[in-house]
Parts: sequence; C-alpha cells; structure tokens
Amino acid sequence: MGILLQIDFPYTGPFGDEMTEAFSPLASSIAQEKGLIWKIWTENREMNESGGIYLFEDTVSAEEYLKMHTARLESFGVQGIRAKLFEVNIPLSHLTKAVV
Amino acid sequence: MGILLQIDFPYTGPFGDEMTEAFSPLASSIAQEKGLIWKIWTENREMNESGGIYLFEDTVSAEEYLKMHTARLESFGVQGIRAKLFEVNIPLSHLTKAVV
Repeated sequence: MGILLQIDFPYTGPFGDEMTEAFSPLASSIAQEKGLIWKIWTENREMNESGGIYLFEDTVSAEEYLKMHTARLESFGVQGIRAKLFEVNIPLSHLTKAVV
Repeated sequence: MGILLQIDFPYTGPFGDEMTEAFSPLASSIAQEKGLIWKIWTENREMNESGGIYLFEDTVSAEEYLKMHTARLESFGVQGIRAKLFEVNIPLSHLTKAVV
C-alpha cells in the first residue's frame, strides 16, 4: 500500500552542505527506523523552511515515527510543525513514473 | 539537484480505485510534463484531503507546473490549495534510502 508522511516546519539553517554535515548522524539513525522505506530531506533557504517526505510500509510505523520525531524536533526548539499522513495511490503514481 | 513540489488540498473523493479510474487520463498527461521526474499521488479519506509530491529536474519547470496545475485545480472547484517548493538535500536523502 505505502503510507506517505509529509512534514514541514520553519527552519533557519544550516542549509546545503552544512545541513548535510550537521544531520548525517541523524540520517543514519532514521534509516534504521521500523517500517521506513525511504525519506527525502527538503530545504528552502529563501522561505526558511525544511522538512521531509517519508514513505512507510504501514500506518502504524508512520504514526509511531511521527510521534517520536515530533517530540525530537520540539526538543531541538522547532515550532509550527505541519504533518500529514496519506495513502499513496499506487496505480496513478506508476502512471506518473514514481517507483513506489 | 532535484526540486520537490509538495501540494495538498481539501478533497471529498473519489478515493482508491474510483480515484484511479477518474484520474488515469490526467495522470498520463502529467507524465508528459516538462522537467517532471515523477509524481506520487496522495489521498486521505478520513481527513478528506488529497495532493501530490513531485520531483522536478529544475526550479523553472516546477514553478511553471505549479502555476498551471493550480489554475487547473481551481477550475475543478478546489479551494485551499497548499503548495511548497523545496530543494532536495541529496546526500541526506541517500543516507535514508531515497533514490533521488
């Protein structure tokens, strides 16, 4: 089926290479999360926003991750987190060249 | 580089197989859009929301698509469209198993 988790929040940096360096250890940890298929890391230095698009195997894994990750972001001082869970429409996504 | 376009909006259906049937012709058209690498179609029947996560080759293609698609959604009667453009942090995304 595939559950997509969409998260974004206000973020003032670091961006680009410095963001990569700052969050590589966290990324290696996130890669081990139960039920995670992949995460795409997003950043926008003009809008001062960042976030992530995640694909999970099932709803329970996505919900548990969201709860844990929201608390982690808040512990970093992040406020104004926007999170949405969706099912993926697989046939339409295949028509538009997505590998899901 | 990779530009990610995140769109979501209020939506009351059709969902699932009926959504697939209703929007397959549109999906085949979207697959041909300039600069599009892929689109993932999202739906949530509990929250009455739908949307899409797109990966584009460049910012200009993503911005042109967003302008056209917003007008198209509004012509369908959709209101309350939320759209965000992001750069993809490629090294962090690779660490979390995304093929981008």
